[in-house]
Amino acid sequence: MSEYRGYSGMSLTLLKDCKAKVGDSVKVTGELTYTGILMPRYEYNDDEHIVLKLKSGYNVGIEISEIKKIEVLSLNEIKKETPQPLPKNASLPKVLLLSTGGTIASKIDYRTGGVTPVLTASELHATIPELSEIANIDTEVLFSEYSENLLPQHWKKIAERLDSYAESDYKGIVIAHGTDTMQYTASFLSFALAGFPIPVALVGSQRSSDRPSSDAALNLVSAVRFVVECSIRGIFVVMHHNESDDLVACHLGTRVRKNHTSKRSAFQTIDGDPAFLILEKKIQKNLNYEYFKNKTYSPKINYDASVILVKYYPGCDPKLLDTIIELGYKAIIFEGTGLGHIGKTLYESVKKAKERGLFLGMTSQCIDGRVSMTVYESGRDLLNLGIVPLSNMIPETALVKAMWALGNTRNIDDMKNLMLESIASEITG
Amino acid sequence: MSEYRGYSGMSLTLLKDCKAKVGDSVKVTGELTYTGILMPRYEYNDDEHIVLKLKSGYNVGIEISEIKKIEVLSLNEIKKETPQPLPKNASLPKVLLLSTGGTIASKIDYRTGGVTPVLTASELHATIPELSEIANIDTEVLFSEYSENLLPQHWKKIAERLDSYAESDYKGIVIAHGTDTMQYTASFLSFALAGFPIPVALVGSQRSSDRPSSDAALNLVSAVRFVVECSIRGIFVVMHHNESDDLVACHLGTRVRKNHTSKRSAFQTIDGDPAFLILEKKIQKNLNYEYFKNKTYSPKINYDASVILVKYYPGCDPKLLDTIIELGYKAIIFEGTGLGHIGKTLYESVKKAKERGLFLGMTSQCIDGRVSMTVYESGRDLLNLGIVPLSNMIPETALVKAMWALGNTRNIDDMKNLMLESIASEITG
Repeated sequence: MSEYRGYSGMSLTLLKDCKAKVGDSVKVTGELTYTGILMPRYEYNDDEHIVLKLKSGYNVGIEISEIKKIEVLSLNEIKKETPQPLPKNASLPKVLLLSTGGTIASKIDYRTGGVTPVLTASELHATIPELSEIANIDTEVLFSEYSENLLPQHWKKIAERLDSYAESDYKGIVIAHGTDTMQYTASFLSFALAGFPIPVALVGSQRSSDRPSSDAALNLVSAVRFVVECSIRGIFVVMHHNESDDLVACHLGTRVRKNHTSKRSAFQTIDGDPAFLILEKKIQKNLNYEYFKNKTYSPKINYDASVILVKYYPGCDPKLLDTIIELGYKAIIFEGTGLGHIGKTLYESVKKAKERGLFLGMTSQCIDGRVSMTVYESGRDLLNLGIVPLSNMIPETALVKAMWALGNTRNIDDMKNLMLESIASEITG
Repeated sequence: MSEYRGYSGMSLTLLKDCKAKVGDSVKVTGELTYTGILMPRYEYNDDEHIVLKLKSGYNVGIEISEIKKIEVLSLNEIKKETPQPLPKNASLPKVLLLSTGGTIASKIDYRTGGVTPVLTASELHATIPELSEIANIDTEVLFSEYSENLLPQHWKKIAERLDSYAESDYKGIVIAHGTDTMQYTASFLSFALAGFPIPVALVGSQRSSDRPSSDAALNLVSAVRFVVECSIRGIFVVMHHNESDDLVACHLGTRVRKNHTSKRSAFQTIDGDPAFLILEKKIQKNLNYEYFKNKTYSPKINYDASVILVKYYPGCDPKLLDTIIELGYKAIIFEGTGLGHIGKTLYESVKKAKERGLFLGMTSQCIDGRVSMTVYESGRDLLNLGIVPLSNMIPETALVKAMWALGNTRNIDDMKNLMLESIASEITG
């Protein structure tokens, strides 16, 4: 069965007719002619395409209806692929590629046909020869997790690992990471490693390197180029930018959000332009301020996850807030409506939370724009109840910052001050 | 003090020097010359501007530094303003303007200087003479609440009131509503009043009619024009569109989101273009399908608010889910990451929720795009646990729909079917 993994219906019939199996090197003749390795497909894909991996590493989907002929050139080429270590070039700078998992570090599992995180960083960069022209890359696999399974304890491990390289001879560090929670990790690293001396770029991909129009190679090459060429302190997220095939954006780690479930250009800088744009070998800088408030490196790697994010909506139950207090949470980040509001039905519970000493911060579910709690009565009421307006900090960043601040301060006043201070561009404008 | 309400520093000094008080009709000479009524300001505004209400109803902010002279023309004009009933014109269609509160139905309170919901719908339309050229407008104040204080029980009251007009001679109904939770109300009305025979337009404003560059009049006039000219069934949200001063967008009520805290163009259609664009008297239609799945009007106005929205993030506590189950919630709408994921640490609690018979629906915190739970292992695991993927329904709409579905079905299978069926364009493409 695995010889035709993922193919069904029309595409399966065609492959059987031509005696071409997954892993074979084939020549496909149609409107255009392609030579490459026949790739497995997802279980749930349509039956109107086959996918070839071209010599360039790019995967192309070819419509069955356009195919005139498929010739098998050689059998089962996949097994012959063994990763080669990259050639080292003493004149190039050194970069560390730290892998945590995610789509960028995964490929289709030839046994199951599913996408699983199995590719090590060393395999990954061996498949992208351009990398060896930019830097000498050391690779290290920290873990192999999809990012929806990463927890604050993983953030801490990544931060500790980066900290151990603070005085190394690396020009920069690239972190391969799943896209689902990349912005949360980027925020934690920004606060925990404030002032980190070399650039750090988190990079992911929306389509694995085995899929047609994968953004894995482009994003990774761009991330490596960015940390090599831009001697800037900061934690950035490097991802495909827009509908074009070759433009990559480099976002501030505390101001970026995954705003689309599937597009390659899913990541956007909130309330501003991307810090850098990368088009092939050219890097354009838009950022006109320092990422970190302080130039000196002062790591604070602790956290306390006793923080909860509450998105307000009509009917949001005061009992829920009461329960949060009972469960021992130490801070609540509200995603209020509009300029930073929650309904009157919650006021009594908010009072209780305040009396128990919880930190209460306000962000907006609008995502774009700034909370402003002095314009309307509701906002002024909430200020009086002790809720702290967090300016234009995006909700996810505020949540991570609160976890970090709780882990690194001794009392709620210190925490409040830390929350209001912009440490890593989390508050702008 | 209220004679200079909201003015301080430089602006207060200037007004005192010129003996001009809030409410006086004044002539201000500078680079340009303005005649109008001196308006009060917000407590927290800068001291570098004064605000005049011009004859046209438009409020203008004038920089102190540009003012050469202020002459008082007559004292305390505000008290002389009394709303006049609109002239009726038998040849024009009838429209009902239902007021629920919000910025569009509020003005600066001359006693306190704050913005409060005090303007009745009849006062409101008396200040906008254009309205009488478009329609004969009946007004009705349902309540006067900022929308952050509206609850599902208010949605029900609005729906019942609309239902009572289903067979009236109104050409359409306009609902003045606060912007903070307008999208939630629009969603509820869409499900509760599926197939409602005449167009309904919710309209709000980001800046009250007393403020400079208020969008109140433009949005209201456009909403009335829309329901008069477009004989279309549907629940729409009519708001300022973009940076231009005169373009208004008309969004599908189930697919719109407030995406900016303060801009007039805060509302956006998710995953698509606005259904209509309104430029002065011209209405351009982009919508090429029916809003409601069924053409017949079949109101179902109940709800059950035992639904909770849980936004997933790293560190999201399984204890919280367990508590939600204990509290007796009947449905959970997840705002997962990416294509619709939550971390493995929650799996056991999800299993428990499923065993207890809760409905579990998945949306994405990315907001744009569609959940797809067959691509990755995590998604497939969650499908196996019984979580229902809700396509491209936006999280807030899914929450409201779940409350509505719970109130109108007898068992979880019916509810699941209802959630997966697109009733009012909540699932598209």
